Amino acid sequence: MYGISQKLNSKMIWQALLLMSVIFMLFIVPASAGTVEENSESIANLETALTVLWLIIAGAIVFLMHAGFSLVEIGLTRTKNTANILMKNFMTICLGVVVYWAVGWGIMYGADFAGLIGIDQFFLVGADNAVWNSWWFQMVFAATGATIVSGAMAERTDFKAYLIYTVLMVALIYPVYGHWVWSGSGILTSGFIVDAIGVGHHDFAGSGVVHSIGGYSALAGVLLVGPRIGKFKNGKALAIPGHSLPLAFLGTLILAFGWVGFNGGSTLDGNDPFVSLVIANTFLAGAAGGIMVMIITWMKTGKPDPSLTANGLLAGLVAITAPCGSVSNTAAIIIGVIGGIVVYAGVMFNENVLKLDDPVGAIAVHGYTGSWGLLSVGLFALGTNGTILEGAAYTAETAGLFYGGGVQLLLIQIVAVILSIVWAFGISFIIFKILDAVIGLRVSEEHEITGLDVVEHGISAYPEFLIAKE
Amino acid sequence: MYGISQKLNSKMIWQALLLMSVIFMLFIVPASAGTVEENSESIANLETALTVLWLIIAGAIVFLMHAGFSLVEIGLTRTKNTANILMKNFMTICLGVVVYWAVGWGIMYGADFAGLIGIDQFFLVGADNAVWNSWWFQMVFAATGATIVSGAMAERTDFKAYLIYTVLMVALIYPVYGHWVWSGSGILTSGFIVDAIGVGHHDFAGSGVVHSIGGYSALAGVLLVGPRIGKFKNGKALAIPGHSLPLAFLGTLILAFGWVGFNGGSTLDGNDPFVSLVIANTFLAGAAGGIMVMIITWMKTGKPDPSLTANGLLAGLVAITAPCGSVSNTAAIIIGVIGGIVVYAGVMFNENVLKLDDPVGAIAVHGYTGSWGLLSVGLFALGTNGTILEGAAYTAETAGLFYGGGVQLLLIQIVAVILSIVWAFGISFIIFKILDAVIGLRVSEEHEITGLDVVEHGISAYPEFLIAKE
Amino acid sequence: MYGISQKLNSKMIWQALLLMSVIFMLFIVPASAGTVEENSESIANLETALTVLWLIIAGAIVFLMHAGFSLVEIGLTRTKNTANILMKNFMTICLGVVVYWAVGWGIMYGADFAGLIGIDQFFLVGADNAVWNSWWFQMVFAATGATIVSGAMAERTDFKAYLIYTVLMVALIYPVYGHWVWSGSGILTSGFIVDAIGVGHHDFAGSGVVHSIGGYSALAGVLLVGPRIGKFKNGKALAIPGHSLPLAFLGTLILAFGWVGFNGGSTLDGNDPFVSLVIANTFLAGAAGGIMVMIITWMKTGKPDPSLTANGLLAGLVAITAPCGSVSNTAAIIIGVIGGIVVYAGVMFNENVLKLDDPVGAIAVHGYTGSWGLLSVGLFALGTNGTILEGAAYTAETAGLFYGGGVQLLLIQIVAVILSIVWAFGISFIIFKILDAVIGLRVSEEHEITGLDVVEHGISAYPEFLIAKE
Repeated sequence: MYGISQKLNSKMIWQALLLMSVIFMLFIVPASAGTVEENSESIANLETALTVLWLIIAGAIVFLMHAGFSLVEIGLTRTKNTANILMKNFMTICLGVVVYWAVGWGIMYGADFAGLIGIDQFFLVGADNAVWNSWWFQMVFAATGATIVSGAMAERTDFKAYLIYTVLMVALIYPVYGHWVWSGSGILTSGFIVDAIGVGHHDFAGSGVVHSIGGYSALAGVLLVGPRIGKFKNGKALAIPGHSLPLAFLGTLILAFGWVGFNGGSTLDGNDPFVSLVIANTFLAGAAGGIMVMIITWMKTGKPDPSLTANGLLAGLVAITAPCGSVSNTAAIIIGVIGGIVVYAGVMFNENVLKLDDPVGAIAVHGYTGSWGLLSVGLFALGTNGTILEGAAYTAETAGLFYGGGVQLLLIQIVAVILSIVWAFGISFIIFKILDAVIGLRVSEEHEITGLDVVEHGISAYPEFLIAKE
Repeated sequence: MYGISQKLNSKMIWQALLLMSVIFMLFIVPASAGTVEENSESIANLETALTVLWLIIAGAIVFLMHAGFSLVEIGLTRTKNTANILMKNFMTICLGVVVYWAVGWGIMYGADFAGLIGIDQFFLVGADNAVWNSWWFQMVFAATGATIVSGAMAERTDFKAYLIYTVLMVALIYPVYGHWVWSGSGILTSGFIVDAIGVGHHDFAGSGVVHSIGGYSALAGVLLVGPRIGKFKNGKALAIPGHSLPLAFLGTLILAFGWVGFNGGSTLDGNDPFVSLVIANTFLAGAAGGIMVMIITWMKTGKPDPSLTANGLLAGLVAITAPCGSVSNTAAIIIGVIGGIVVYAGVMFNENVLKLDDPVGAIAVHGYTGSWGLLSVGLFALGTNGTILEGAAYTAETAGLFYGGGVQLLLIQIVAVILSIVWAFGISFIIFKILDAVIGLRVSEEHEITGLDVVEHGISAYPEFLIAKE
Repeated sequence: MYGISQKLNSKMIWQALLLMSVIFMLFIVPASAGTVEENSESIANLETALTVLWLIIAGAIVFLMHAGFSLVEIGLTRTKNTANILMKNFMTICLGVVVYWAVGWGIMYGADFAGLIGIDQFFLVGADNAVWNSWWFQMVFAATGATIVSGAMAERTDFKAYLIYTVLMVALIYPVYGHWVWSGSGILTSGFIVDAIGVGHHDFAGSGVVHSIGGYSALAGVLLVGPRIGKFKNGKALAIPGHSLPLAFLGTLILAFGWVGFNGGSTLDGNDPFVSLVIANTFLAGAAGGIMVMIITWMKTGKPDPSLTANGLLAGLVAITAPCGSVSNTAAIIIGVIGGIVVYAGVMFNENVLKLDDPVGAIAVHGYTGSWGLLSVGLFALGTNGTILEGAAYTAETAGLFYGGGVQLLLIQIVAVILSIVWAFGISFIIFKILDAVIGLRVSEEHEITGLDVVEHGISAYPEFLIAKE
């Protein structure tokens, strides 16, 4: 009995253990296996949620840049045109939201046609939460181009003509070039140009897409609309001081704040660790640009000039917008310093050589410095191979000229600079020409002297304050 | 031997395998099961942390709206009352924080009594991190109602009377109605009214709770305090221009920025994917409202009016505050357009028919448009059944009238509109009547003409600038 | 056959089950075990990403405080020095970014030398994403000290001297004291002082590190530069009204907004649940400070004073900056109320007893109230033992005097108050003395009367507005 019972017992124990183990596996293991999958799903949801919130917050910060642009533009112009400039900027946003929803997004991110243009998703048809999230962040960028133009053409441009131009900027000019660079299937990141050069174009947050496009469109507008009455006397540029330095500086600081969202959000990924480098580079370049211009103006005139210095910060920020995720801190400072030089030289060149009247310096800040930003990627990009950027997902993979990557990256950046100038200047020139012919681009001399606030809107921006006669 | 040994071997192998498997399960599986649980806990912590940060950030953005309200109110009124309006708005926040901590939160979210009022958690007794987080986000909303009233009654209301009213607004008027709608046990989401109609009230981010309550309270105040000296001449409304359009527009843009937090944060959940739809709808409606009012004023007067256009944007934002998480993009645009019409018509009706003097248009922007926002839910809600909102947690579950959901949702929204008007207008009327009797609601004629800055605060807001005599 | 076959069957079934279970374990369990590890890694990445984004956003909000400081300073001073103050604040940021990158960070967080100073990581050599992230958040704090000094010395200080001082503030004065408190190896959290007293110093977000250091440096500067012409007549202080209350209030509200990032971000951890208590305490104290000063000025002069009331809010915020994560809501209110009293008394004491001219009240707001904030930790800290702060990671572990913790914490806080005064006042006094000797700290009388905008920058901040003659 003993033997058998022991045998049975032994067998029973084994079988009981086996049974337990099977039961354990059936109930416990599958349960925890299920939870592992549930956890993985929860983690994926969290990663998505983090990106969603980051883009909403970054987009909100960029949205506030429209307040910054408004303040810079009115601060650097005269009281008699303040309400008009405020309205132009305000309608730029309002129209921008609706037009980029109806048309712009589809042109930029719709199904590609020939690398040139997107052709569906108009009115965000079929959008889901991911599309709305992306749309929000892209939308706040879209109206910026028109705002840049508004500043350069301030104090003499017809309100109606500007509104129509804005619609076309957000529907067409901006998103077409944006498609070329950011859609993933545009001619600057795939296709024959890229095949020929061997590397795709890199414009991280839009030195070219946003700033150059705005700046060279402004150049076309300023050329066609002509200088304000009194800007040039016997071919010499005269200063027309802006009416409120506090508003100009507040606007500049809001813009700098906005760049946290502008560059930081442009990873389009709340989980990207390299966003911290992006932010550090952004502010190092901006600061370097501001310091550089202060020094230049101090040396040139004996006094550090406030509004040019403010533009120096903006120039540094515009320049670093393309390379911020691809370069070292030291390079960021150099890029900012050169950005400061570019904006100072650009403002002087526009005023004294081209005899252009750009009240806020938008062509130099956004156009010229934007192009410098694109070129700087081709010079300073570290590349991902064995550098601090190893593993970075949103960077220029190839190194630039100064970092042993050869001229390829610089070449494609030069192509982009040329394309952005040709496209923005060309299409805007044509549109402004047509607008000039059809409605008239410029207000009458009498209206310009009176001021656009009274003429276009029937009001005064500061009705109680006594204003000095010109 | 062979057979037996083989049998034994076979058996031993099996048993060894079994033993290994049991050991494996005892040591390996429990270990990984433990880590799975740890992971689940970490994930839950992360989900909570994301909500915590989102509500802190969204609340911060809403907090900044108080700067926006301050700027809109001073921008649209005269220099001589600027310091007074700044102080009123400033004290609204200071008192709002303390009073909503001591009383308001408990009335709104304390244990329910009869569906009417909360009755504990005063002074946040027993609060934990979750309560502090919720309190912060709710608190920044709470003071908004009083700020709306401040704007409508600006330039002639006694400072002390306003402060007392603000305390009552944050302690009682706002949180009682808030309890009805947002506590989960209030009369508009449970109880006999809801049982009778068959569906609960939906006011996502407070078209009713915040804006209508503020707007109709303002209506009572404006009725009782009367128009500013000089506003009506022979029964005709005269324009009293605001002293700084730049500040009014900056304020409006800060408010629009604030709506990202106001509507976006109102999911109260950092993990909700539908927040992107909320943001898209919010800005589509706001933009549509701004465009609509620009067009209306352009058609009516021949010139697009800046301050009414700014109010058009705000009207679109106020209107979409209730329906933003429940409607399509197209509906959002329609709601914004109608919001623009409502605010324009409302301002004209108040001035020309009711002969009310509301310097900033607060009654129309927040009251009338807030009611329109509530109604629009009943018309345009998509419902969750097979729509893009399937699975959305913070939306109107039932479809509205235009989307096949019948009249139920519209009915409960109408009830809420009526209740919000009756409550806010009624209680504020009584409070203002008492304040008028006890301290006097309105400053003396002499003081009003002098201006409240000198009279109430002994200073001038712009002591160096030369101001035109009236 | 039956028996055997049954036996075989039974055995085969068991063996099949066993085989299945082993296979299941070999293939399924290890697979899920691997995923568990992957999940753990993804979770760790998410926790890091949340911290990264929180510090970027919080840092951005703190960055905007520089706009707030600029507006408060120009709002409370005269039009003729507005451009100069704007430039000083602007260059403070620009220089701050670059100097804190090159030197400040290394001094503050580099490898410790003797508990006194950090000695590596200059130019952020060897930085990775974690360092850039921390640097960004620390950098936006660093320039604040100089900004505080700028306000106190406004309207009569030489621009060049100020710039040099700013470089030294960000490179040396601020980061040395910061090293003592926040590096983890400084003399206030480890070493002989801490050993002697038995508990380390707690300054959560910098009542001492940022505000006291700025405030007492300002005290040195104000003493040496002397009062503005016209501030004192026959030993009696006269009011020199600020030129724009709207800008001062907008600045104050932006600063309050900034405190969400300042205190909220100072957990340096996006996953810390106690951040909600931090935010609640911050705003309760700020509001209490504002209310208290309004009441005091109302009682003292019969009229509630706007700019002092605004300083009352700031005083509450400065005071709560150290204790915000260590005290109850009620204590936060008390700390804010006393902060209000301190700032009012401090402003009066400075003007009437010390005969100091501090146009914006910076010494009282940041210096005196900062010290009060440090002391309040020693009085009101709840400690982590069995309180609502159980498990909090970023709080004062020991209870303060009023909560049964004895005098130890108060003692170390007193030591920090003394050290911050001695260090900031001493080093700044020496630096300003040298600057005065070498370049001259103060502009000439003629230049001061003309105004620094014209003299230092060749422009006017408001060229179109008619300004009253003094």
